[in-house]
Amino acid sequence: MKSVFKHPLSLTLMASCLLGAGAIAAPANDPATLAQIRDSAMSNDWAFERLSDLTDLVGPRLSGSAGAAAAVEQVADAMRKLGAKVTLQPVKVPHWVRGAETAELVDYTGRPAGISQKIVLTALGGSGATPAAGLTAPVLVVRSFDELKALGTKVKGSIVLFDVAFDQEMADRGHAGPAYGRGSMIRFGGPKLAADMGAAAALVRSVGGANYRIPHTGATGVVDGARIPAAAVTAEDAMLMTRLSARGPVKMHLTLTPQNLPEADSFNVIADWPGSDKADEVVIVSGHLDSWDLATGANDDGTGVAGAMGVIETLKKLNLKPRRTIRVIAWMNEENGTRGGKAYFDANKDKLDKHFAAIESDSGGGRPFGFIGSVTPQMVKYFAPLKTALDPIGAGVFERRDIAGAADTGPMERAGVPVFEPLVDSTTYFSYHHTPADTLDKVSPLELKRHVAVMTSLSWFLANMDENIGRVAKQD
Amino acid sequence: MKSVFKHPLSLTLMASCLLGAGAIAAPANDPATLAQIRDSAMSNDWAFERLSDLTDLVGPRLSGSAGAAAAVEQVADAMRKLGAKVTLQPVKVPHWVRGAETAELVDYTGRPAGISQKIVLTALGGSGATPAAGLTAPVLVVRSFDELKALGTKVKGSIVLFDVAFDQEMADRGHAGPAYGRGSMIRFGGPKLAADMGAAAALVRSVGGANYRIPHTGATGVVDGARIPAAAVTAEDAMLMTRLSARGPVKMHLTLTPQNLPEADSFNVIADWPGSDKADEVVIVSGHLDSWDLATGANDDGTGVAGAMGVIETLKKLNLKPRRTIRVIAWMNEENGTRGGKAYFDANKDKLDKHFAAIESDSGGGRPFGFIGSVTPQMVKYFAPLKTALDPIGAGVFERRDIAGAADTGPMERAGVPVFEPLVDSTTYFSYHHTPADTLDKVSPLELKRHVAVMTSLSWFLANMDENIGRVAKQD
Repeated sequence: MKSVFKHPLSLTLMASCLLGAGAIAAPANDPATLAQIRDSAMSNDWAFERLSDLTDLVGPRLSGSAGAAAAVEQVADAMRKLGAKVTLQPVKVPHWVRGAETAELVDYTGRPAGISQKIVLTALGGSGATPAAGLTAPVLVVRSFDELKALGTKVKGSIVLFDVAFDQEMADRGHAGPAYGRGSMIRFGGPKLAADMGAAAALVRSVGGANYRIPHTGATGVVDGARIPAAAVTAEDAMLMTRLSARGPVKMHLTLTPQNLPEADSFNVIADWPGSDKADEVVIVSGHLDSWDLATGANDDGTGVAGAMGVIETLKKLNLKPRRTIRVIAWMNEENGTRGGKAYFDANKDKLDKHFAAIESDSGGGRPFGFIGSVTPQMVKYFAPLKTALDPIGAGVFERRDIAGAADTGPMERAGVPVFEPLVDSTTYFSYHHTPADTLDKVSPLELKRHVAVMTSLSWFLANMDENIGRVAKQD
Repeated sequence: MKSVFKHPLSLTLMASCLLGAGAIAAPANDPATLAQIRDSAMSNDWAFERLSDLTDLVGPRLSGSAGAAAAVEQVADAMRKLGAKVTLQPVKVPHWVRGAETAELVDYTGRPAGISQKIVLTALGGSGATPAAGLTAPVLVVRSFDELKALGTKVKGSIVLFDVAFDQEMADRGHAGPAYGRGSMIRFGGPKLAADMGAAAALVRSVGGANYRIPHTGATGVVDGARIPAAAVTAEDAMLMTRLSARGPVKMHLTLTPQNLPEADSFNVIADWPGSDKADEVVIVSGHLDSWDLATGANDDGTGVAGAMGVIETLKKLNLKPRRTIRVIAWMNEENGTRGGKAYFDANKDKLDKHFAAIESDSGGGRPFGFIGSVTPQMVKYFAPLKTALDPIGAGVFERRDIAGAADTGPMERAGVPVFEPLVDSTTYFSYHHTPADTLDKVSPLELKRHVAVMTSLSWFLANMDENIGRVAKQD
């Protein structure tokens, strides 16, 4: 018998024999099973292959686009091939299509005759359009909402530029999320405020690090009011306009011709890996399938989707059957509406007590350190076996939070479902996020393996744990 | 008297009194004067202001463009304001104008219906044009000239991609120049070879570090033969095409509509700061005024021009009169023809014995460590006073070379004139070089001060030294 015990798998195999033939069940905190999941994930390229298919074959996947539709089919097919029970949940999504986008500074103090300066920009999602031939207006540079408000009626008819630099130092110190939060608040609220004050158009300095004259797109609040043209300029171009404004008045000719089309039909891809004795309870593991249109969304959020898909592939390969049902969801429309998350919540409002927990991965493919989760402080101790299993790959940290704060699982979390996310190094995430540079080469195959190891271990653990981690009352 | 000697200036002032009233002369190796030059340059923003004017007000300055013409005027005016004797030397330059540039992969193995992948690229200088509606052809990926040659008649009618990665690790180890040399050899020779073999178009992977999906333009050899369309794709897009080619055939639709216009009239800006007893001998200090068209050429080569201009401003401010004439030259057309350097050489062929030395700065605004120079090993010892003066700002290194190898002074150097260049940290130079991101914010005002300190100290030293550093026989 001794030789049989050499491999961790053997213990589980023996447990399986005791339970009967077929798939293997094991207690959530069985160290051998968790080690087996970790080691299998760390030697498996399947998730990276799925990420390659999604980014190289489909490419950009903005809601309503042909890419988004192709991505739904591709992910559903891959999950069906694994034997998962796949459902396409209908979701109505905004359908915004980028158009021409050019800008030049046609006048400024010190401008030599015949010279204009090109400005590199990209429309924000939902932006309104200028006339086809563009518009010309003075540029007003501000650095805060208050500064804009103080300009009063001067704003009318002008092009407002919010020149607020992304705080990369804050990101470098480990607080990339809050740094992005500050920036995206300007991107979301600034153009709306400018529109309310009568601006002809609004520009924001790109929210993200690494200055290589690439603009970072993203959602903006102009969709909720006077839909003025709104764009992100590169950090370099924002700085140029600020410097030229210090010399005197600056005038821009701006052309943005995006279209806001009627809402389109799309889907959340839902793939169930059925549980055993608690099959009616669900552990969600998810990422969002849509991306912005400038790149192939490898980090945002191809890694989340491929990582979630890898959970089922890993369990299948190991022939491990969870007690609760593990539900992979590839959300639609996280980027400009979170309609997928809302549709799921609306359809499952009455079944939230059967939602044991939800995992959402949407922080890119950086190195995972572990995971975060919104459970009560009293529950943290029960997760110790996960730490033991994941510490050998440097991914054993568990950071408890009152709110995990992910987008698609947000409605569920606010209704009391505990939400988990991988905890990853996002120091450079916002250097690529929402730019043309968010491409497959930015994701390390090794880190994606770690990612799958964390997501699968956590999914398995949650699907099998005895303790009820309970409903935490959250405020909206 | 003692108090008079407290300040280094005092020694020079006393020397001046001995020489008579007016501007100050001093021996080249007078430590007090060299220290004074260094300290003055290190506390002076004038050169950075000129760099700001050149980049922010004029912007891109490709040969033949309105920007190049405006730059000639701006620099000439600034030098005249200092009191320099300014000459505009006529130079005929190529006049190439960028047009539309788009590409998409319209077919590849695994492509979902309705999907095509956008490729980010930019035409290489001198590139020919596709039909206005573009052309469609299969993509052939190669990694070397030999690999292309081995494809033989398959090349005919195809779009050849040279997917050769820039060796950033080599740059990180301090060999950015040689790393660039390897890459630019492909960029220059690859499209020409593809054209000779009957390719419909040629693409090269961008030559430069930092992958943020920005293309690096540059000169290419197709100007010397069948002028096929030739472009640089981003590193990301090159990698994508290589990955897709591994899955099966790849087809691209490519549109490039640049124009090759008749040669244009332009100028070298030459500004003399006359010498005293050896006024007929010349020390050139120079940078090139033209830039590529994608950005404002702050590093390539705004810093060289502003640094050279700063030499005269510093000497004027200190009221220092050199023995030899210091000649600032802002060269035209270094990027796509080096016509300025050639025109100067042709006009001065008979006066090279009066060209004591030439300084050329064209390695960007990185941290200067000192300078390099093509003098005989025996001469190195005479430059010791410069080391003493520049060591306090970390810029005292003198690296002797057989050939300095700068572009515009190349013909002079090959004819025996010793050439000097600032020795700078160029680790990240090729991350911005020839891209849209070569903008003012990439140049540190502090490093530009060091740059002026090095260039002024070296100019002054060469203009006043007693030793004849002689003519070194160079092979072409």
